[in-house]
Amino acid sequence: MKGAVIATGGELLQGLIQDTNSSYCNGVLVELGFTPVMNMVVGDDVEDIIRALDLACSKASLVILSGGLGPTEDDVTREALARFCVGVPLEFHQRAWQWIQERLEARKTIPREDHKRQAYFPKGAVLFPNREGTAWGFALSKGGRWIVALPGIPRELKSLMENEVIPFVRGHFPYVGGLQSILLRSFGLKESEVNNLLKDLIRTHPNRLGLMVREYGEIHVRIVGPPPLAEDLAGQVKGLLGDDLYGDGKETLEGVVGRLMRERGLTISTAESCTGGMLAHTITNVPGSSDYFTASFVTYTDDMKHRFLGVPKEVLDRYTAVSKETAHHMVEGLVERTRSDLGISVTGIAGPMGGDQEKPVGLVYIGFHSPQETKVNEYRFFTDRLGVKTMAVKTALDIVRRYLLGL
Amino acid sequence: MKGAVIATGGELLQGLIQDTNSSYCNGVLVELGFTPVMNMVVGDDVEDIIRALDLACSKASLVILSGGLGPTEDDVTREALARFCVGVPLEFHQRAWQWIQERLEARKTIPREDHKRQAYFPKGAVLFPNREGTAWGFALSKGGRWIVALPGIPRELKSLMENEVIPFVRGHFPYVGGLQSILLRSFGLKESEVNNLLKDLIRTHPNRLGLMVREYGEIHVRIVGPPPLAEDLAGQVKGLLGDDLYGDGKETLEGVVGRLMRERGLTISTAESCTGGMLAHTITNVPGSSDYFTASFVTYTDDMKHRFLGVPKEVLDRYTAVSKETAHHMVEGLVERTRSDLGISVTGIAGPMGGDQEKPVGLVYIGFHSPQETKVNEYRFFTDRLGVKTMAVKTALDIVRRYLLGL
Repeated sequence: MKGAVIATGGELLQGLIQDTNSSYCNGVLVELGFTPVMNMVVGDDVEDIIRALDLACSKASLVILSGGLGPTEDDVTREALARFCVGVPLEFHQRAWQWIQERLEARKTIPREDHKRQAYFPKGAVLFPNREGTAWGFALSKGGRWIVALPGIPRELKSLMENEVIPFVRGHFPYVGGLQSILLRSFGLKESEVNNLLKDLIRTHPNRLGLMVREYGEIHVRIVGPPPLAEDLAGQVKGLLGDDLYGDGKETLEGVVGRLMRERGLTISTAESCTGGMLAHTITNVPGSSDYFTASFVTYTDDMKHRFLGVPKEVLDRYTAVSKETAHHMVEGLVERTRSDLGISVTGIAGPMGGDQEKPVGLVYIGFHSPQETKVNEYRFFTDRLGVKTMAVKTALDIVRRYLLGL
Repeated sequence: MKGAVIATGGELLQGLIQDTNSSYCNGVLVELGFTPVMNMVVGDDVEDIIRALDLACSKASLVILSGGLGPTEDDVTREALARFCVGVPLEFHQRAWQWIQERLEARKTIPREDHKRQAYFPKGAVLFPNREGTAWGFALSKGGRWIVALPGIPRELKSLMENEVIPFVRGHFPYVGGLQSILLRSFGLKESEVNNLLKDLIRTHPNRLGLMVREYGEIHVRIVGPPPLAEDLAGQVKGLLGDDLYGDGKETLEGVVGRLMRERGLTISTAESCTGGMLAHTITNVPGSSDYFTASFVTYTDDMKHRFLGVPKEVLDRYTAVSKETAHHMVEGLVERTRSDLGISVTGIAGPMGGDQEKPVGLVYIGFHSPQETKVNEYRFFTDRLGVKTMAVKTALDIVRRYLLGL
């Protein structure tokens, strides 16, 4: 079974916005057992959309189309689909209009006449209510094929996909044996190391395993195959990569740390210099992190490090703020004040300015305090400002993860 | 003049790798004066590539194709192009083969027979030597149109584009006047408000102005046109949107705030609860932010708010942590301790848990302290956890921006 994906929107063709929806839809198609055979991006133009639909339907039995479901005149996906399925007029759906009005009113926006456009759908469409916005999705059948139209805003598209489209497709393509797709995530290994560890497995199972080198030290292994094989391969990859795998599926380092913190009933606080609050921000992206995260002191000057974390002035003068000694005093001063079980301190040079031969850009010290010990490690990250911050944050989280797992 | 972009590669269709080349190529086309009318992604299949080329050439006079120029059997772009330009055979280029062998030897790789595939090009092709790898690009003319083939590795594609393709296109399409592209950024307005303010301008200048609704309260206006017209339209948009525009080009809210802070010679610190450090993280993403940012207290519990910011226990008990009163005491306690000129406090409910009827998820109080006054505003953001954090951070930065501009 083949699938195709079309994204509409003039803004995508201007090179200003990266179309991420198509790549996401490809992944969903694969998981549903479809082979994606083409993606297209076209402007907000009825003729262009029809031409793209024509080509897509000549190749695929399921076509996913994103964008063009808004309230403005530019949003022509509804019209294009009605014209493509010749003789199908748009019809007004009172239930959708009611929902749209309620959503707008909840947001203190007065529904306007043009919002009503969003309550019109091609006759015969199966409607998918949108929990995140006013643009409902829908599916339309043509000659044994299904075309699914979804809003272009990624959050809304994903919500509709997971809640509505995936169950719908599973129901309407009962004979498609879905492939299982398993993602395993590692942090801190080099690509060549992972390649070396997995090379035999990759050779014996062509097109089943893929290495994805993500930014900032993350390497993910994707396994796609019929369920028993995929499970088996995932087990083998876990055996080969061991503790360097931190999670699977959609787990993040901070999510794994959060789960372990809650299981152990411990608390943590952070003292940040070069990460500038990003470590605390990342930890608190996890819902319920207030159960274990208590506080962060972001001390961006020597004076703040001295006054709020008690780093001695002599230490700052003698060793400077970016030193093993300062990182040590930062984390000790931190846990003395917050009384949390664990503490992390980060100090370094994020760049692009501020480095010199002795203390270059990318030099970072990370201090870790636990009831057993306080230790400081030195790192050097070769990347840009946000990269140094991100690498420091991920490295700090991985230190906590390894401690909590007793590694 | 119209342009089209085709990316080839099975890995792009698996949803594992995001195709970023097409978006980049769209941007180059716009700068060269072409209007991109379609993007396509197809697999490594001669028939599919030919079908895509056929469609692209029916719409565009310049087609950029990326991927499929490697040494393996999967790499069929050369064959597809030779077949598309009927009767054009592939021919061997000794000069390219020499170059490829030298590059491979420099990388301590022994040239294999299959590497020779990369030295074959369709007869009549204009060759573009690759400084970054072994896959040379080339251009081929068909019926007055030009098709440019480039390698799929983004770094190589960009290098070839800048060094070879852009001068080539400028030379072969001498009558295309490059268009100027201007981006103006606003925060905090509703899409309908911007639409209303700009609707006359959009109507009188079709295809010159585009509204891009980005996530989290950002609306950007893109203007594309011949230089004098683009400048003139940008001036009119600035007049209509006024102070709600915060910047242009690649400026961010935090970048604008940073520039103004430095100009005014002021310092700032933050006290964060629901943003969990994200406000400090965002401020410190700006290089040189240590000139004006001093510290952030991320106080995630009542106890931390009391001990480190001096919020009275009675206030926390009586009004709770998410209240106007707590936000007020947080920012006052903050600047008392950090002695910065400006201070911002944020407290709210990021969700998804922790809300109730009286204090729902998305309720946020932002306190602002300046030498003139301390004020607290109440907000309600209708989005997910990261969205509430992001909206609160952007709103806080916009408060500072408006203060620094005397608005």
